[in-house]
Amino acid sequence: MPKIAVLPGDGIGQEIVPEALKVLKAVTADSPVSFEYQEYWVGGTAIDKTGKALPDETLKGCKEADAILLGAVGGPKWDHLPASERPETASLLSIRKELEFYANIRPVKMSASLIDSSTLKKEVVEKVDLIVIRELTGGLYFGKKGRTEEPLSAYDVMTYSAPEIERIVRLAFQTAQQRRKKLCSVDKANVLETSRVWREITNKIAKEFPDVELTHMYVDNAAMQLVRNPAQFDVIVTENMFGDILTDLASMLGGSIGMLSSASMNGKKGMYEPAHGSAPDIAGKNLANPLATILSAALMLRLTFGLEKEAQKIETAVIKVLDQGYRTADLARSGDKVLGTREMGDAVVAAL
Amino acid sequence: MPKIAVLPGDGIGQEIVPEALKVLKAVTADSPVSFEYQEYWVGGTAIDKTGKALPDETLKGCKEADAILLGAVGGPKWDHLPASERPETASLLSIRKELEFYANIRPVKMSASLIDSSTLKKEVVEKVDLIVIRELTGGLYFGKKGRTEEPLSAYDVMTYSAPEIERIVRLAFQTAQQRRKKLCSVDKANVLETSRVWREITNKIAKEFPDVELTHMYVDNAAMQLVRNPAQFDVIVTENMFGDILTDLASMLGGSIGMLSSASMNGKKGMYEPAHGSAPDIAGKNLANPLATILSAALMLRLTFGLEKEAQKIETAVIKVLDQGYRTADLARSGDKVLGTREMGDAVVAAL
Ligand SMILES: CC(C)[C@H](C(=O)O)[C@@H](O)C(=O)O
Ligand SMILES: CC(C)[C@H](C(=O)O)[C@@H](O)C(=O)O
Repeated sequence: MPKIAVLPGDGIGQEIVPEALKVLKAVTADSPVSFEYQEYWVGGTAIDKTGKALPDETLKGCKEADAILLGAVGGPKWDHLPASERPETASLLSIRKELEFYANIRPVKMSASLIDSSTLKKEVVEKVDLIVIRELTGGLYFGKKGRTEEPLSAYDVMTYSAPEIERIVRLAFQTAQQRRKKLCSVDKANVLETSRVWREITNKIAKEFPDVELTHMYVDNAAMQLVRNPAQFDVIVTENMFGDILTDLASMLGGSIGMLSSASMNGKKGMYEPAHGSAPDIAGKNLANPLATILSAALMLRLTFGLEKEAQKIETAVIKVLDQGYRTADLARSGDKVLGTREMGDAVVAAL
Repeated sequence: MPKIAVLPGDGIGQEIVPEALKVLKAVTADSPVSFEYQEYWVGGTAIDKTGKALPDETLKGCKEADAILLGAVGGPKWDHLPASERPETASLLSIRKELEFYANIRPVKMSASLIDSSTLKKEVVEKVDLIVIRELTGGLYFGKKGRTEEPLSAYDVMTYSAPEIERIVRLAFQTAQQRRKKLCSVDKANVLETSRVWREITNKIAKEFPDVELTHMYVDNAAMQLVRNPAQFDVIVTENMFGDILTDLASMLGGSIGMLSSASMNGKKGMYEPAHGSAPDIAGKNLANPLATILSAALMLRLTFGLEKEAQKIETAVIKVLDQGYRTADLARSGDKVLGTREMGDAVVAAL
């Protein structure tokens, strides 16, 4: 039986993950597929219980599972820790590295019923339908770093090897091939040597995908274009740090960050999580929006388990619920029917 | 007599710089100040004439001048060159390094008459009035870089020393002190050692400025917040690469990139240029918008020469011209009176 490691984590993670499980169980109820779910501690909750943001048992469970469903990690309670030891950094970076999840995939699509929630004008975002693919185990994140004390200075090394670039770029081409066949590779080749190698390799791999139109864009321009005319993009691929910035920026194009899912993958295996954080201010109040986690579960069905029909069933149910005017507090405008976290989960199940 | 080195550069640079000079001469016509203007080649034009993007004579002229007024550099004509030798990279990075222009200053303010040109909603951008201060001579741009051939890999080193951080952060605090007294320092301290040192030093310097409210923000969140709620910012300070991305992103908040000026400085000495590029597609057609260059000249009068009254005179004239409904083609909507580059320069002079 395929295994799903369930990591609710901190804050609203504890509330939104159960809703996603509810939907997962409902959508697979009368299908031959069934999953084994096993829950683990991660993040601040895990620090409190075990002293470690990513306990050995959790890591082992993640390694044995076919997919991981994560809620959110972090919160002010752990802000006294040095930045590198806080729950989000300590747990997420370790999972990515240990499981070699080298590809972060973030689809951004404007859903018609949320278009008014965007800070961008309707005509700018209504046709947004893009995917950002971020390299996740290389670059500045995992390069050598250090400091000297007197005189005080510090360094971080950005490195990329050919195989690291090849696998992520190839995945991006494959993704584009299944979509509108446009790939934009984002780098800073006018300044960085890593970017120059990135560009050379991308141009070489492009020959394997003659049906995909490849363009290159500098990262500063890409940030600007995502706000100027985001509908021009189909698939974007970029290195780790640029991707960190651009995925968060792109999340602003999808109506609300409360709707955005993300996958961190290596082959079919992946970790699925909402793009938003642990929102400690509203935790425990049945106020959180579970839709990004529910949509992450759909992404899991599609990408890890190849259950396209079930994935679409969830996505369609979410759209239906929104079209009916149901909203959690974060998205509610006057005239909407406001639901709590649990009630929103129920509404999606009912709409399946 | 104070000296201004004039570097029109490539493409529309040749058209917009003369308009800024026209305005500069007009605004100082009956004041006791007068400048000595000396023109130099730079960028692609300089490559064509001398083989170098930054000829020795130009560099010497820049060193001897009190301020530099630059148009724009680069164009498809030089795209066959390796990225690091193209006009924009070769000339701009050398000037910054040689003249130690460590601070890039980009003010972004929404002008009421351009609010409709923004891709963001009126209520999101109408109160935008911020300055991004970018460190310009450190970090990944000037660190060691290189590649190995077999196996192929590359690296770029990000480094920052305490004095490099101190001078830019201090300038940012001083700038905030003269404004709304809010400084947001942007870094990635959860991942980078350079950012951790950056944050420590910023917290230390904050003690010298008890009247300024300091916050720290991760760069991914900052990119998002600039689109979500840009009016929350007063002064933003950040390192070179993050600043490259955030200044371009922030430029989308100012109504149009055709309106944005920027200064690269060391003490009172500075290089002033529009935030936009050389727009080769419209070059030579009297279509370019000279306002960003004209506003850069105003910034020069203010920051290098302390001529606040004259600077404001120019800024007020630009607003007046826009309020009268005059626009260059890039900003024109139906009902506007469309002017060419030269005619827009004349209109600003007339409005002084
Ligand atoms: C928490 C942090 C280390 C992480 C990152 O920078 O990758 C986060 O911003 C993300 O994008 O998942
Ligand atoms: C041309 C390029 C090297 C430059 C930079 O990255 O600094 C440009 O993008 C800028 O912001 O002035």
